[in-house]
Amino acid sequence: MRQWPDRRILDLLGIELPIIQAPMSGFSTVEMAVAVCQAGGLGSLACAQLTVDEADEALTAIRRATPKPINLNFFCHRPAAPNPAAMAAWRARLKGYYVELGLDPEAEPPTANRIPFDETFCALVEQHRPEVVSFHFGLPEPGLLARVKATGAKVLSSATTVAEAVWLEEHGVDAVIAMGAEAGGHRGSFLAQDMSAQPGTFALVPQVADAVGVPVIAAGGIADARGVVAALALGASAVQIGTAYLFCPEARVSAVHRRALDTAADDNTQLTNVFTGRPARGVINRVMREVGPLSPLAPAFPTAGGPLAPLRAKAEARGSANFSVLWSGQSAKLAPRLPAGELTRTLAEQALARM
Amino acid sequence: MRQWPDRRILDLLGIELPIIQAPMSGFSTVEMAVAVCQAGGLGSLACAQLTVDEADEALTAIRRATPKPINLNFFCHRPAAPNPAAMAAWRARLKGYYVELGLDPEAEPPTANRIPFDETFCALVEQHRPEVVSFHFGLPEPGLLARVKATGAKVLSSATTVAEAVWLEEHGVDAVIAMGAEAGGHRGSFLAQDMSAQPGTFALVPQVADAVGVPVIAAGGIADARGVVAALALGASAVQIGTAYLFCPEARVSAVHRRALDTAADDNTQLTNVFTGRPARGVINRVMREVGPLSPLAPAFPTAGGPLAPLRAKAEARGSANFSVLWSGQSAKLAPRLPAGELTRTLAEQALARM
Repeated sequence: MRQWPDRRILDLLGIELPIIQAPMSGFSTVEMAVAVCQAGGLGSLACAQLTVDEADEALTAIRRATPKPINLNFFCHRPAAPNPAAMAAWRARLKGYYVELGLDPEAEPPTANRIPFDETFCALVEQHRPEVVSFHFGLPEPGLLARVKATGAKVLSSATTVAEAVWLEEHGVDAVIAMGAEAGGHRGSFLAQDMSAQPGTFALVPQVADAVGVPVIAAGGIADARGVVAALALGASAVQIGTAYLFCPEARVSAVHRRALDTAADDNTQLTNVFTGRPARGVINRVMREVGPLSPLAPAFPTAGGPLAPLRAKAEARGSANFSVLWSGQSAKLAPRLPAGELTRTLAEQALARM
Repeated sequence: MRQWPDRRILDLLGIELPIIQAPMSGFSTVEMAVAVCQAGGLGSLACAQLTVDEADEALTAIRRATPKPINLNFFCHRPAAPNPAAMAAWRARLKGYYVELGLDPEAEPPTANRIPFDETFCALVEQHRPEVVSFHFGLPEPGLLARVKATGAKVLSSATTVAEAVWLEEHGVDAVIAMGAEAGGHRGSFLAQDMSAQPGTFALVPQVADAVGVPVIAAGGIADARGVVAALALGASAVQIGTAYLFCPEARVSAVHRRALDTAADDNTQLTNVFTGRPARGVINRVMREVGPLSPLAPAFPTAGGPLAPLRAKAEARGSANFSVLWSGQSAKLAPRLPAGELTRTLAEQALARM
């Protein structure tokens, strides 16, 4: 049996395979995380769209199902102050779609719910003591971060540029996730503003590896064993894989999203802010094409999503993906389409065989 | 001595090392091409900014200096029909800069010279019979392509999407250059229109390798041995490297460009059309920031470059790179900064040692 040439992430996180299931808030499940953990990778539970009670319940279920290390993932954006003018402008931009779909444009839209890491979630971490805590959009404020680290949890966060990686290391992460532009879902960007200057995985990973002393986890465009081998060759100690896990039976993916993933190709995704106010990569659909992909009108994260929700619900009821979040990276087509545990094991075995 | 695991490009092109020096029209030299050939890679002579006589002279000099295979590179855009209205709008957009720099905005600007592959260049190929002919922006019309192939030359062209790769294979190329979004200089795109949907090298290379039967050459973001190993792991049979060769003493790089390359980072380049009318990646400067990076006003390739030329000359005379072409990929920082022959050999040796 061949060995992994770089054991830094394996030893740091206490896992057997250098494969991390991306948290994918809204799409991953307890079953997925457990399957990945049991296979020897690192399963992740995304908490950004869970209440503390729901997160508590999910984590309890995971702990009951597996003794392996688990990653608890949180967003750490600063909640946006209410901006009625920006929201009014956004609703005005979308009004035509409300009319077209027979919805009342004057009805108060729902509020988008992405909850940042806070006191209550920190207490949950202190109670359950997950082996790994990962953050998206930077890091929480120093007091909260210190409490997380005091539990013994290893802390990860995503960098979309070398500057962000260096910042994360300076602020105490145990490893950096180098997230190339190919990645699906929300960019982890917290210093970088200009999406047109975001580096691809191939350029980012070795430059991050050269710039920081902590181990690097490559993310973005990795969906098969070739990608695992290439990421390690570029200087990563492990990989984080998202889109490939969306094809697992354990994923919570809507019918329209699943259909979009089946057609996802190298060249039909874009970074868009129309769904949440923050740039994220998804399969191009009508609202991205007509309103975005990056609209200066989209109000602050996550509030842009509120007025989209009724449009999405109405369109999806008609089988249309015109207003749906269709997160996907650029390598969906490479995904082996296996259950989560088997996917994890297969990627690792095939990668080892190629090294 | 370890062996290259995939000999397809080596055998196809008759070279020893799976490293192709990117043609880099305007920046490469006879000396660079000869050094790369002598080292065992494939040197390239870019003809897009040469007259037929200049190309003849350069190729004769190369043939005299080395018996190794050489690549002759051509652009094959369709020359734009004159569009006085578009040009007037472009000049109007740039007028403020003319005034600022003390130039006469009414003076007729020079004409940008990128010459597409044509009868005369085809005759040159028939006369010199280079072992390899590579094209950028698709392929020439079938009659000319047939004549090139009749000389025995192996034909390469760049694909920026899987669709372009499949098209190139269907139209007779012997190998496809899979050019990820990280690459510096002009995108090879000829079917793809939307630059915001261009895949990165990490996503593109394996998907192209899966989609075509001909061997794949990876390009974009490759500047050190880690990149060579990773590209081969992703399914490429060889790599094409551009930016790293711009640091060679054999490169023809202006002082302002060289300074920009010294500061080029993972996150300070963009795709811009302001310099030529076609998207190309370079270090962000003032005209990109203020007029671009992708301006709907930029007239058709290559005519956009005409009115930029006086601005560039005047600014550069003052040591300013505000209006200069500063082509660079996203991995400039990884470049070893060696003479071209040594760079070629070092990348190959270090890559083999890592495999």
